[in-house]
Amino acid sequence: MPRVFSGIQPTGEPHIGNYFGAMQNYVKLGNLYGKNSIYCVVDLHALTSPTSFDRELLAQRTFDMALANFAIGLDPQKVTFFVQSHVPEHQELSWIFTNITPVGDLERMTQYKDKTEKLESIPAGLLMYPVLMAADILLYKADTVPVGEDQTQHIELTREIARKFNHAFGETFPEPKAEYNRQALRIPGVDGNGKMGKSKGESSTIGLLEPLDSIWQKLRVAPTDPARVRRTDPGDPDKCLIGDYHKLFSDLPTIELVYQGCRTAGIGCVDCKKLLLQSMTEHLTPIQERAQELRGDPDFVRDALSQGAREARAIAAPIMEEVRTKVGFLKL
Amino acid sequence: MPRVFSGIQPTGEPHIGNYFGAMQNYVKLGNLYGKNSIYCVVDLHALTSPTSFDRELLAQRTFDMALANFAIGLDPQKVTFFVQSHVPEHQELSWIFTNITPVGDLERMTQYKDKTEKLESIPAGLLMYPVLMAADILLYKADTVPVGEDQTQHIELTREIARKFNHAFGETFPEPKAEYNRQALRIPGVDGNGKMGKSKGESSTIGLLEPLDSIWQKLRVAPTDPARVRRTDPGDPDKCLIGDYHKLFSDLPTIELVYQGCRTAGIGCVDCKKLLLQSMTEHLTPIQERAQELRGDPDFVRDALSQGAREARAIAAPIMEEVRTKVGFLKL
Ligand code: SF4
Ligand code: SF4
Repeated sequence: MPRVFSGIQPTGEPHIGNYFGAMQNYVKLGNLYGKNSIYCVVDLHALTSPTSFDRELLAQRTFDMALANFAIGLDPQKVTFFVQSHVPEHQELSWIFTNITPVGDLERMTQYKDKTEKLESIPAGLLMYPVLMAADILLYKADTVPVGEDQTQHIELTREIARKFNHAFGETFPEPKAEYNRQALRIPGVDGNGKMGKSKGESSTIGLLEPLDSIWQKLRVAPTDPARVRRTDPGDPDKCLIGDYHKLFSDLPTIELVYQGCRTAGIGCVDCKKLLLQSMTEHLTPIQERAQELRGDPDFVRDALSQGAREARAIAAPIMEEVRTKVGFLKL
Repeated sequence: MPRVFSGIQPTGEPHIGNYFGAMQNYVKLGNLYGKNSIYCVVDLHALTSPTSFDRELLAQRTFDMALANFAIGLDPQKVTFFVQSHVPEHQELSWIFTNITPVGDLERMTQYKDKTEKLESIPAGLLMYPVLMAADILLYKADTVPVGEDQTQHIELTREIARKFNHAFGETFPEPKAEYNRQALRIPGVDGNGKMGKSKGESSTIGLLEPLDSIWQKLRVAPTDPARVRRTDPGDPDKCLIGDYHKLFSDLPTIELVYQGCRTAGIGCVDCKKLLLQSMTEHLTPIQERAQELRGDPDFVRDALSQGAREARAIAAPIMEEVRTKVGFLKL
């Protein structure tokens, strides 16, 4: 059975791009692989981002991200779900990997170059990020890593670190494979400026737990196919973010209605948006209700995360023990 | 009361340069500060040295270094003595510090530049070494660090990291001071080629636990003051490594005899070396006997290190808890 590892950024409440791009997939993989689906809210990685890191908000955002995942139906009893800083073996393994990773390889990472381009002073955490990521994955001997395509280079480095460790200390780690979720790339922001969440700020995103009237305010002013200058101009839902959202939220008859109506100018954009709001309401209401329930019962989330950390450490413990022995530390 | 932290490289059996340069000082500080004298065999640092790291030998060298320290009279009941890899909080804190340490500061370290000068591929561990060292010290809120002068820059970086953390997350760490042991710099190698242990290899060093006949073979061929070409030429013990060793090992009457005899050509170099061997025998025999005893009772060393790791973690635990809270990790 494959073992899946996925790191989840503690960004607080996720948006619908995260939901369709990654979170739904966690539920699916959880149903397939149970406790071998390992999900980790990576608060240690959040430290590397000097611009977005906010210590006042970190705990709350970590909690909210966990809560949102549980609200969509990810069952902490079924999968392994925990917070990275609760399992210090991540840093322990990371230090060991630091010693078999060339500085040059880290400096060559595209994401490192992008993130540091405009920085006057570069925190070493940005350079070491992919080493901690390799430790995240290999600490559980995970072989499957669902990621976006921007992580290709990091996964390749993880494979390289696994190979190097195996070569230096004896066969220990699998070489994990990236599993791309291509849908993640296609969810446009509601302001029409590219991928959701790409441009920071509330205006481009629709929160998974956002009140529906607030969502409606965003849909109302969202750009549509520019071909539809007048109500009587036909349009193309494939060139419209509202069309894209229908494909995610609406059932087949509604999608057909939209395609047909838009192309023949049979419906107006406002009606089309109202149809979308209806589909979103149907889809999001149960999730938001479940989130509301969990907010009223924070101990559920906390207990689940405690239990998850224990489960993660139980998987990691024998692997770390193997690593310590192979590296040659004194055993007492 | 000051709190002292010192890292001890797991180089196996120490030489008399280590003994006079550092180990005797550990005993002295241990008598003064008890459990606040924290000594750590830094096997995690040993990983950073790609040329000298040998996983087959690491555990043995760690054990031997601990044993030698106990043999000279360092009492593990009195001080805190443990092995770095047994306290994973070192790596945990190190990761946090990685995020407040600029890459540029690490690249500027003289020791980093020296060590990497001839390397084609630089392991990231060499770059991150001083960050782990800062974590070693600050994990215990140590304020006093006995080191050689080659560590000045690293201690300054540790102070800088303490300041940065305090500034970013609130007053937490002291700014530790280096305490230099100048004697460490003055102990020459027995081959006459500079400081003991500087040129690698057995020929320059006299092992603390080396059999006395083996020591004699080295003394016999050791260079002396070149002014003494003939037996009748007077010499100067201050220009002779045998003279230097007398100052470390011999009692005052013997030292006076050597000064007087050398300067007046009253004694020959062979006699002078025999006197030294006698002093060394008196000094080293009890240590070597105690080491022999400990070799016969490895559980003593192991139990002491287990107990030491527990004590170290007991000191570190509330400090790490404070750090986690201040950084803002979710608490369960
Ligand atoms: S009818 Fe709907 S899909 Fe077509 S352009 Fe208007 S909002 Fe977009
Ligand atoms: S007599 Fe002793 S101190 Fe003087 S040169 Fe000879 S060995 Fe050195």
